[in-house]
Amino acid sequence: MLDLQSMNNVEKSAMSPREARELFRAGQVLPTAGISAGYAQANLMIVPQQLAFDVLLFAQRNPKSCPILGVLEAGQTSSELLAGGDIRTDVPKYVVYEDGVKVAEPTDLREYWRDDLVTFIVGCSFTFETALMENGISVAHIDQGVNVPMYKTNRRSTTAGTISGPMVVSMRPIPAARVADAVRITSRYPAVHGAPVHIGNPGELGIEDLAAPDFGDPVEIPEESIPVFWACGVTPQAAVMESRPALAIGHAPGHMLITDIRDTEYQVP
Amino acid sequence: MLDLQSMNNVEKSAMSPREARELFRAGQVLPTAGISAGYAQANLMIVPQQLAFDVLLFAQRNPKSCPILGVLEAGQTSSELLAGGDIRTDVPKYVVYEDGVKVAEPTDLREYWRDDLVTFIVGCSFTFETALMENGISVAHIDQGVNVPMYKTNRRSTTAGTISGPMVVSMRPIPAARVADAVRITSRYPAVHGAPVHIGNPGELGIEDLAAPDFGDPVEIPEESIPVFWACGVTPQAAVMESRPALAIGHAPGHMLITDIRDTEYQVP
Repeated sequence: MLDLQSMNNVEKSAMSPREARELFRAGQVLPTAGISAGYAQANLMIVPQQLAFDVLLFAQRNPKSCPILGVLEAGQTSSELLAGGDIRTDVPKYVVYEDGVKVAEPTDLREYWRDDLVTFIVGCSFTFETALMENGISVAHIDQGVNVPMYKTNRRSTTAGTISGPMVVSMRPIPAARVADAVRITSRYPAVHGAPVHIGNPGELGIEDLAAPDFGDPVEIPEESIPVFWACGVTPQAAVMESRPALAIGHAPGHMLITDIRDTEYQVP
Repeated sequence: MLDLQSMNNVEKSAMSPREARELFRAGQVLPTAGISAGYAQANLMIVPQQLAFDVLLFAQRNPKSCPILGVLEAGQTSSELLAGGDIRTDVPKYVVYEDGVKVAEPTDLREYWRDDLVTFIVGCSFTFETALMENGISVAHIDQGVNVPMYKTNRRSTTAGTISGPMVVSMRPIPAARVADAVRITSRYPAVHGAPVHIGNPGELGIEDLAAPDFGDPVEIPEESIPVFWACGVTPQAAVMESRPALAIGHAPGHMLITDIRDTEYQVP
């Protein structure tokens, strides 16, 4: 069998999503950035049926932070987003929460699975980062080899049933002369967070120190750049956790579901 | 009190949504076309909480036919879409279904109301018809003073849980030279069905006779025009009925909810 750890970047990038998922299913574990280039990667949020309406309504009311790419109903473990796959095994690493507290980071969900679990597959900004780079706008955290910095803000998401929480944003410094282009380019990807929610002054979002993100890693901000903030897929996960459900499962940070859908399919005119 | 029946079109058009809802609440009954011009009118779909996840998932999977503008959770009877209003009284006429069969057409829902009812407010093509006319594209059924013709098609909606059914389309004949413009204009209103789903040959949709619509009225097709088909808000109502829920409530055809949201707010760039 192929060994992900020993592959170079070109080999990882050229793998099909199905091949990558098969390697994860066989137990290999690696962050997914750079694997199966051109295919959309996605966040996971798995909850019991009882909470599913609230989660879906939260997504409907907060589409910029929680863009739903697909839903596996109770009892379903696959769909056309992961053809021939199994959501319980095809993500490299998961996080299991009980009563809102992390209890495990398994690489296989089968021992936790219940037939009443509903899986939400949520868009991820990896898709528009590719588009930014193809348009000559460099992405600082990729250049610097770290995870994107994410911050809790003073803006509340719109509540849905039992689910409520702060809007979480990701930040990318963009050269002042390219901010308008970055807005235009990311606006064309509404299924993966779309246009920025805030440009410039972090203080207005209640962010005191850009160097101390709540999630991910700090990045250096080049002198000619200003901070640009996008709604972040961590928002629904943070909100669901606040409601302390008996069981909830997500993907481990950076270890995403690699879908069969091409990034370009999420582009609107 | 104002009397809707005796008002002329200019007076009806100039009423605020709140004023119109107050007249309906007081028991006046009239189709809503032409009332409170410039404000979005909407379809209603009210179901017990038990069915609410399936309905919301159906909408998520069929966004062109079922664009959700808002959801009132179980126990809620108002929202910012109808500020100061009450969903149980502020629509001129409702239709109540029990086990999928129409049992009443009340003008007030209070005797049918239960605290577990969830209300879905669904976008309506009235919004883009205004935009078409403002761009010099006449709308045949409005010119001819009848309801828009609607047809069941041979395309199935994507199933969600217990809810499945055919895609229903509305048809507007458009002059061949303006079809591209009609596509461009309606594409800018994704929250109210968006771009057409089919242009030309009705037979490919399984429609045998344009003169015999399944809902609404037939229209004459001008010689230089071709039929253009849009996904229709009747789709979710037809699908929910097929699942024969114990109780479901919609608006009576043409008797819509008049919201406080301006049509232009649903326009994307």
